Amino acid sequence: MNTANNMVIAQSGGPSMVINQSLVGAALAARWTDRIGAVYGARHGIDGILREDFVDLRKIPVPQLEAVARTPSSALGSVRHKPTAEECREIFEVLRRRGVRYFFYIGGNDSAETAYLVDREARRAKVDLSCFHIPKTIDNDLRGGNDHTPGYGSAARFVAMAFQGDDLDNRALGGVKIDVVMGRDAGFLTAASALARTTPDSGPHLIYLPERPFDLDRFSEDVKAAMARYGRCVVAVSEGIRDADGTPIAVRLSQWPVETDSHGNAQLSGTGALGDLLAREVKARTGIRRVRADTFGYLQRSFPGVASELDAAEARTVGTTAVVLALCGGERSGSVAIVRKPGPGYEVEFKRVPLSTVAGKARSMPAAFIARNGHDVTPAFLDYARPLVGELPAVGLL
Amino acid sequence: MNTANNMVIAQSGGPSMVINQSLVGAALAARWTDRIGAVYGARHGIDGILREDFVDLRKIPVPQLEAVARTPSSALGSVRHKPTAEECREIFEVLRRRGVRYFFYIGGNDSAETAYLVDREARRAKVDLSCFHIPKTIDNDLRGGNDHTPGYGSAARFVAMAFQGDDLDNRALGGVKIDVVMGRDAGFLTAASALARTTPDSGPHLIYLPERPFDLDRFSEDVKAAMARYGRCVVAVSEGIRDADGTPIAVRLSQWPVETDSHGNAQLSGTGALGDLLAREVKARTGIRRVRADTFGYLQRSFPGVASELDAAEARTVGTTAVVLALCGGERSGSVAIVRKPGPGYEVEFKRVPLSTVAGKARSMPAAFIARNGHDVTPAFLDYARPLVGELPAVGLL
Repeated sequence: MNTANNMVIAQSGGPSMVINQSLVGAALAARWTDRIGAVYGARHGIDGILREDFVDLRKIPVPQLEAVARTPSSALGSVRHKPTAEECREIFEVLRRRGVRYFFYIGGNDSAETAYLVDREARRAKVDLSCFHIPKTIDNDLRGGNDHTPGYGSAARFVAMAFQGDDLDNRALGGVKIDVVMGRDAGFLTAASALARTTPDSGPHLIYLPERPFDLDRFSEDVKAAMARYGRCVVAVSEGIRDADGTPIAVRLSQWPVETDSHGNAQLSGTGALGDLLAREVKARTGIRRVRADTFGYLQRSFPGVASELDAAEARTVGTTAVVLALCGGERSGSVAIVRKPGPGYEVEFKRVPLSTVAGKARSMPAAFIARNGHDVTPAFLDYARPLVGELPAVGLL
Repeated sequence: MNTANNMVIAQSGGPSMVINQSLVGAALAARWTDRIGAVYGARHGIDGILREDFVDLRKIPVPQLEAVARTPSSALGSVRHKPTAEECREIFEVLRRRGVRYFFYIGGNDSAETAYLVDREARRAKVDLSCFHIPKTIDNDLRGGNDHTPGYGSAARFVAMAFQGDDLDNRALGGVKIDVVMGRDAGFLTAASALARTTPDSGPHLIYLPERPFDLDRFSEDVKAAMARYGRCVVAVSEGIRDADGTPIAVRLSQWPVETDSHGNAQLSGTGALGDLLAREVKARTGIRRVRADTFGYLQRSFPGVASELDAAEARTVGTTAVVLALCGGERSGSVAIVRKPGPGYEVEFKRVPLSTVAGKARSMPAAFIARNGHDVTPAFLDYARPLVGELPAVGLL
């Protein structure tokens, strides 16, 4: 029998409003059982394990943990780093020395890939290590049977509320308003803008997703048509929109070299460039005078106080469930998927899925959620997203 | 005796989260008294009067009015239009035909100027019209003895919450984050970012206001020093920062022609250009790799559900007070100022001030609110702003 029974948990990738719910859910579940000893929180993901930069989460008072749970962003710090086989061996050495038998990694598909690599290398090296991925992404792009992922509902709630406010702003002052929403490959977050609509003339009037090729000529025509119909136009645009060749519009229109990350992806967030470029194109092509653009940026994943209650609760539950599965699920590794049950009403179950089904892959919006005209969502999407986002503030109009 | 006893009320300039509280406060005050007949809401400010595009606010059910009060942006629509003397005469003709004796205009210093012009022209034309300005501005830049103005507390609350979230995001992933905040001439809104700090290492670590000349060299040095001290850096920048010659940095750094409005002011909002330009300069001058910029944009004035409770209540009260002053204040025109009483605790009074003291002029942050180093605020500012913004969400750290 392996005498090591400590666990390590870490956070990775982009933060979300509820990622700390998962951390606290797992930490408290571990504290409730005597089958787990020390509960090490590693700072900044696997980098914290390599540096042995740990917080002992058994020693944090529960009220402080609960305050952390309600706080956006990754309380342990985050990282974007895929470990090499060599680094995995270094990790195992640290874990062996620390008596760690359970490894939990909270994040998106890149983090699932890290968990997958650590699990694979551990099996190869005959290290007795249970590896579980705890899902988190605001983009909602995890595969592996996930109906949705913790973090999405809250970011989607921020986006829907932002469009409520911005549509009211546009009602007051008119013109064209373009709002750029996060989501490189999946349009789920941009699509949530549609939840802001309360009347037949509510914006967003146009919604562009990365799943459909974006054409500047058609875009200008769409804007002109909306202006003719509503006398104003609010546009939701995903940062990841691309042309028919797959080139991101942000890259195609830019006059500057666009920064790329270690995976070769163009930097789309943390800049207002796409919105400004689209606004300039609309002005030049339509002659409409008042054209403005905002880019919601990192507020979508970190703004305090607007988390979806359901999302917070589910984020807590996936953390708890990962610990339960690691202890008594019968498999030494996996990820936790939220599976929605068919039928009226909202009901889900949490189940183990193999790491390989989630690791490194992204899913897009299903075609059934995208309107035929290519610039809207379907009622099926609204039915899907509404329970995740929760009730929005009431809007009064005159 | 003048038999006309109807009133008209309208909204003008940029929206705020609580401008409808003032509208509803005035409308309900008018409904409570039999000294006022019809309560006309004009759509899109004076343009709605000229077009006779009115909503009869006596006929709107109170629950609907209360829902409007809680809704951001200008429910009657807005406009940016200074009336000519000829247009004032057209306005008087409409008002005479409609039996209007009371004119209320909700907005900032440009709207106060409109009320001032309408009042002056009415006196010249011997039209018996009571003209009151009801203050609103997110920039907090009204003169006339205003301690602060309705709309500021809520926008400042959004900014403070946004910096809470963004500082947490920056803790997780590091690097330099530049956030651009509204405020062409006054730094009050950018300064509110300082309320986000909860620990000695909390951001924003640097705050740049339009009241102090902005120097790119010094800025780079400040960022490097903050990186050395905190290992990361969150920067709050007012959209209105300018160099020692008074040229907006947004204009100076831009490679594109910057749009100007009818007053010759460069368009600073509704674009992410300044943040992107500053991020590029920081990267080029410091060699720091991860530099990101967000521009909070119109969300600062329209995001639902985050209004400051005090701000909402005061916005309601200035609307009510304007009606009371018009009916029995002893003067036929004026604006309503919020005057803070000296001493510990927060106490204010609402009083009439002449339109001329508010019209068309803007105030800046007093020097006592700006730190000597030029990139921070003073404790006096925090004491000033804290009650206006209200308690912020609690932050839990590990």
